Formats: sequence, C-alpha cells, structure tokens
Amino acid sequence: MPPDPIPDTLTLADVRAAAARIEGRVLRTPVLHRAVGGAALLCKAESLQPTGAFKLRGAFSLMTTLPLDTPGVVAHSSGNHAQAVAWAARELGLPAVIVMPDDAPAVKRACTEALGAEIITVGPDSDERAQRAEELARERGLVPVPPYDHLLVAAGQGTAALELVEEAGPLQRFYAPVSGGGLMAGCATVVAALCPDAEIIGVEPEDGDDTRRSLAAGERLAVPPPRTLADGLRVRRPGALTFPILQKHVARIETVTDEELMAAMGWALIQLQLVLEPSGAASLAVALREAKASGNPSPGEKPDTEAPRWGVLLSGGNVDPALLASTLEGRTP
Amino acid sequence: MPPDPIPDTLTLADVRAAAARIEGRVLRTPVLHRAVGGAALLCKAESLQPTGAFKLRGAFSLMTTLPLDTPGVVAHSSGNHAQAVAWAARELGLPAVIVMPDDAPAVKRACTEALGAEIITVGPDSDERAQRAEELARERGLVPVPPYDHLLVAAGQGTAALELVEEAGPLQRFYAPVSGGGLMAGCATVVAALCPDAEIIGVEPEDGDDTRRSLAAGERLAVPPPRTLADGLRVRRPGALTFPILQKHVARIETVTDEELMAAMGWALIQLQLVLEPSGAASLAVALREAKASGNPSPGEKPDTEAPRWGVLLSGGNVDPALLASTLEGRTP
Repeated sequence: MPPDPIPDTLTLADVRAAAARIEGRVLRTPVLHRAVGGAALLCKAESLQPTGAFKLRGAFSLMTTLPLDTPGVVAHSSGNHAQAVAWAARELGLPAVIVMPDDAPAVKRACTEALGAEIITVGPDSDERAQRAEELARERGLVPVPPYDHLLVAAGQGTAALELVEEAGPLQRFYAPVSGGGLMAGCATVVAALCPDAEIIGVEPEDGDDTRRSLAAGERLAVPPPRTLADGLRVRRPGALTFPILQKHVARIETVTDEELMAAMGWALIQLQLVLEPSGAASLAVALREAKASGNPSPGEKPDTEAPRWGVLLSGGNVDPALLASTLEGRTP
Repeated sequence: MPPDPIPDTLTLADVRAAAARIEGRVLRTPVLHRAVGGAALLCKAESLQPTGAFKLRGAFSLMTTLPLDTPGVVAHSSGNHAQAVAWAARELGLPAVIVMPDDAPAVKRACTEALGAEIITVGPDSDERAQRAEELARERGLVPVPPYDHLLVAAGQGTAALELVEEAGPLQRFYAPVSGGGLMAGCATVVAALCPDAEIIGVEPEDGDDTRRSLAAGERLAVPPPRTLADGLRVRRPGALTFPILQKHVARIETVTDEELMAAMGWALIQLQLVLEPSGAASLAVALREAKASGNPSPGEKPDTEAPRWGVLLSGGNVDPALLASTLEGRTP
C-alpha cells in the first residue's frame, strides 16, 4: 500500500524532509557556473547521478517511507524512472518489478535488468503499461512508485533545487524541464519559498507542450503523442497532483525544437564537459537562448558579480551514443 | 619574485594549507562511484573545474601567496596550465602574460585570450618558450608560475586527492596520470599520509614513459618528444622537485596506448556522462583494465561493500570535438 497519510499540498518543509531521507543515497551533484551573454548560468548537473538522471531522488524519497515488511515495488517506465526505481530497490533490499514497453531500447532494458529488477514486457501503449502495473500491484501486493504524480516523489525531485539554492545562493530565474511535472512541482516549491522574486520558467518540446496549453487554459489538457527527440518529455498531459502546484508557481513555459536540443547538447559537451540527453538539455537550450539575447561581456572582463543569476536544471545524461556523436557534427574544427 | 621561503619537501600539512587558500575559488568536484569487475572505482571528476582541468588548483595555490604589489605573472604553456593561470590571474586582479607556441590550437589561444591574458607567441620548441618566459620575468618583474615543478603548485594539485579521500574514505589503490609530476607529487603525499596501505599507481602514455624509466633508473631521464594523443602528458622528463616525491610514494607506473585512451574516453561518455580529454582518461584506462581483470559481480547484486576501493583521478576534459566524436564511432548500437 502507498504510504499514508499523503500530504495534500507540497511545502518547503516536505522537500527538506525528503532531503533528510535521501541524504547519502544520491549524489550531491555539482553546480557549474558559466558566464553567458549578460547572465551567470548556475547549472545543476543531475546527469551525474549514478543512474544518469534526477529520478533517483523521487524514488528514494517515496521508497524510504515504506514499511519494512513491504513485499516489493512496481513501476512502469521505458526510461530513467525504471532505472531509478530498480536502483533504489536494490539499495533498500526490496524486490522491484518494472513494466516496460516491448519497443524500449535494449540497452535500457539491460541496465534495468542488471540492477536486479524483474522486467515485464507489454505493448507500446502507455495506458496498457499503467494498467498492467496496477494489476501487478493488486495481485502481488506491490507498492506502485509513480514517475511523477505523487507528492513524496515530487518532494524528492525538489531536493535538486534545494541543493542548488543552498550552494549557489539566491536566483533571479530558474529553468527546468516539464514533463509530468514532478521535477518542476518540487523545484518550484523550493525556489518560490527561498527566492520569492525569482521567475520560474518551465521548458517543453515544441511538439509536446501540454503544460503550456494547460496553463493557458486553466485546466489539464492532453496533446497527441509528441514527436520529439526528448524522450523524457513525451508525457501527454500534466499530472493531477503536480498541475495545481505548477499553476501557482510557474511564470511561463518556453518551448524548444529538436535542433535547439542538439545544439545545447553540443554546447554542454564542449563548454561544460558534460554529456546530456535531449530532455536533459532542454532547460539549457532556453537559458542559452535568453542569455545570448541579454548582452555580452567584453573579453577578459571578470564576469559581472551583479549579473543576474539563473539556475538551470540539467535533468539527465542517458543518451544514445549515435545521437551524441551527431551533436558533434559540424562542430569539428 | 617567487614566494619565499619555498618548503623543501611536501607534507600533508602543506596540502591542507593549500586547500584553505583555494577554498571557494575552485570547484569541489564530485566523486562518481562505479562498480567495475571486482572493484569500486571512485572517480574524481577534475574535468568539471571551470577551466576544464585540475590545473586551477596549483595556479591558485601559488598565486594566492603572492604579495599584493605583484606586477603580474608569467607562464608558458600550450594547454590547460595557460588557461588556469589566466583564470586565476583574472580572479585575483593580476595581469598575466602567457607564452604560447605558434602551433597551439587556435581554440586554446582564443580561450586564454578571452580570459584577459596577454599572449606572446614563439616557435614550437618548448625550450624557446621557457627561455622567453624567463626573459619576461626579468624584464617586467613578472612572477613565473611553473606548470609543475614548484612545491606550492604541487601542494595545490594535491587538494584533489584530499577531497577524494575526505569524501570517499580510505582507498586501497590510487591512480593518477603523470607528466611533469606535480599532480602526482601532491596527490601521492596525501594518499600516502591518509591511506598508508594504498598502492599508488602512476599512468603514462606508452610513448612518453619518462617517469617509468626514471624510477627504474633511480635518476631523472629524458625521452624523445612523445607521440601520443595525450597532449597533456608530453613532458619529456620528470620535474626536479617532484621526482624525489614520486620516488618515495609511487609503487608502479603503468602505460597506455592511444587506443586504450580512446576506449576509456568512450566509456566515460556513456558510463559516467563525462567528457574527458585523452590525458584525463589515462588513469581511468588503467583502472578499467585492472578492474576487469579482477572479476565480475552477478547481475543485480548490490556492489560488494567489501570490494577494494580504487581512487581514479580524471584530470581534464578539454578535448577537440572531432576527436570526441571519433571515440563514439563503432559504439553506435
């Protein structure tokens, strides 16, 4: 059974409590500073988590609250959430069952299996996946670990922003990608509480802007299956629990094209020495676009200590090697 | 004038003092844990320093001890040391003159210039470079910042190992690249003091094994100009001050081929989400080789908490995009 009681809203205290639960279990990722245009970018490298993405924070945040006699957990995912749940389950000594689509990349399946999880394969439809996970939860008494629509998961993801602000100080802007909204719900809660004047900016793929449309409409809208390189941002509708939190805190949503994602991945390789996946480079793509529009310091000038400080959440780095290689094309000297 | 008095040997206390001087000026880089074969690799990602290499530690360690009326600094380098000195000079408000060879990559020259340093170009011969830097020091009263053969520089580089051991705990082995020996002298001093049973392993390119030969001979020997992808490891002879420290602490030197460097760079991209330059991947190449030879855990098994803990210093990530792309070739699914 899911932990009870589930809080009905998310506060800074919830994120601080999650931070205490996950301490020592996730990497305190570095914040890389870069002066770009007239802005100071403070890039939080969640791509360096042991499973290559921030998802580990939410998985540990929820799973550390489970009772000791929990028979196991179940999750459905084709990507980073699967690996995070499998990793956390192994660390906590819990069996994990992951429902994956039969078209999931072989490498992601192999990574999840190597962590000791039982893989159950279904068709490519995400509804079928969710339904099978629910059946497994009922049949075997497994606890579902949702990818985003759970406040303990969102609180865990928010610890990334908590570390960023603790380390880098007050922000004037905060950029993070938005898919189901768990990462943004947690992070926005932190940034709004600690940097009340900061502008909070969500980033979605141009095709896959369900949150942008939903915020404009004032209600959760679905979009057709998005066609975007950012496989982590293909959720079709904001989460039921996360959406009201985004409504409260997010100032605006910006969108990015596949070309901008590739360019930001290439920039990260050369300027940050970091591998990012397309979803992981989405917030960087928009921050770079807006920083370049904001002016340029002279060569040799020490970066303006009064320059606006923009937090940029780099969410993940699990990328296909062929795609990574293509971000470097045309960049050869 | 160089700071005075210069200590005549290097101790853990010297490195701790350097750590206090450079605190807040360099990034406390993350330690990435990976289970490989029968070993736990603890990878210290110095490639994430703002200039892309550990060299910033040594530059700040020396330059923060200079008197306030110092007219400026001078260094000769075609690579990471140039950028480190230019960066530190800008941060400390000192003029910097960098003597670079006329065949230095345009991008490295541009990066150093963008940090506000004055660039003076000489022929490709490294002796000519050193001589021009000495002249400039005399003529303009500039303080030379040597790339490795200075105990304050070596003490600064040692702070990387200090952070690694503080964060990751005792090590059974420590791997670092060896060029002039500044990084290894500082790091070996720390590891020998804090982990007295650890085996300290230096890594050199197969062509460029001057330290291996020198340790075997018991005296500093020079090799012909090395032909290796690892442009940071092309020094032809161990440093006069660093060599006796290496003699005391280094258990063995292992060598790597260009092919092994490329393979380790590719592994780092996909398994660590990190961009490494060839020199920066040298220690990893040997650690991977030795870890794979040491056995394999079963899939799903939690990494053995009793597995030997090997520290691996990843020294830098400033790499030509074309070379980086080629490390991904043949790795596409």
